[in-house]
Amino acid sequence: MTTTTRAGGGAQADAQPARPELPLTDLTVCCAPESGSALSSEEAEQLAAVLKAVAEPTRLRLLSMVAASAGQEACVCDLTEPVGLSQPTISHHMKVLVDAGLLEREKRGVWAYYRLVPERLGAVAAALSPPA
Amino acid sequence: MTTTTRAGGGAQADAQPARPELPLTDLTVCCAPESGSALSSEEAEQLAAVLKAVAEPTRLRLLSMVAASAGQEACVCDLTEPVGLSQPTISHHMKVLVDAGLLEREKRGVWAYYRLVPERLGAVAAALSPPA
Repeated sequence: MTTTTRAGGGAQADAQPARPELPLTDLTVCCAPESGSALSSEEAEQLAAVLKAVAEPTRLRLLSMVAASAGQEACVCDLTEPVGLSQPTISHHMKVLVDAGLLEREKRGVWAYYRLVPERLGAVAAALSPPA
Repeated sequence: MTTTTRAGGGAQADAQPARPELPLTDLTVCCAPESGSALSSEEAEQLAAVLKAVAEPTRLRLLSMVAASAGQEACVCDLTEPVGLSQPTISHHMKVLVDAGLLEREKRGVWAYYRLVPERLGAVAAALSPPA
């Protein structure tokens, strides 16, 4: 009775489709230093690149809207109105978030759907968390 | 036998001295939306301002070096050599982190000491954490 559709959230995605090649090294490997150790120069470069993508108010709102959507997935058609910007502008911001590895994009018919990559965002949050 | 010195870490700082006025609203209040809700425009503006401060490799390294130091505190004199930049440049980066509320600065003799504000950094990390 298992389904393989992408709709609906909840279930842990342990058999994800191959992710598009990320422009940055996987943060879950690169940017979570041992507790008590400072970031290396390379780790800092990679983490800063992802943080630059989210250090912008509209992109933060868009990212949080996708994260708050059912299944952590949203159609671009549902994002334009609440943000109050044109669809090309929204699409530009979404591309920056996709390039940073924080969202995955899938075209269905005429619309693009964006899904959160929670492990990527979680790795950024973990890298910023203060030592216990 | 309680002491009131600022040296030594570990103990929970539940009776902190008044913090210098932060340029941003306290993130522990402003930027941790209820689980499942998207950021408001104002929350996104405030979170983006703090993220801009850390979205820079040298500042990320400096912040992590302070966080990894004993008592989460470091003298500026100990930061210049590992980063390989001049002290005025380091001091500029440290000021950006202080203005963002992530570090506190204290002058002792000729040197400036910087201490992590862990609840501030933790609030940023929490605001970025994906919903469970």
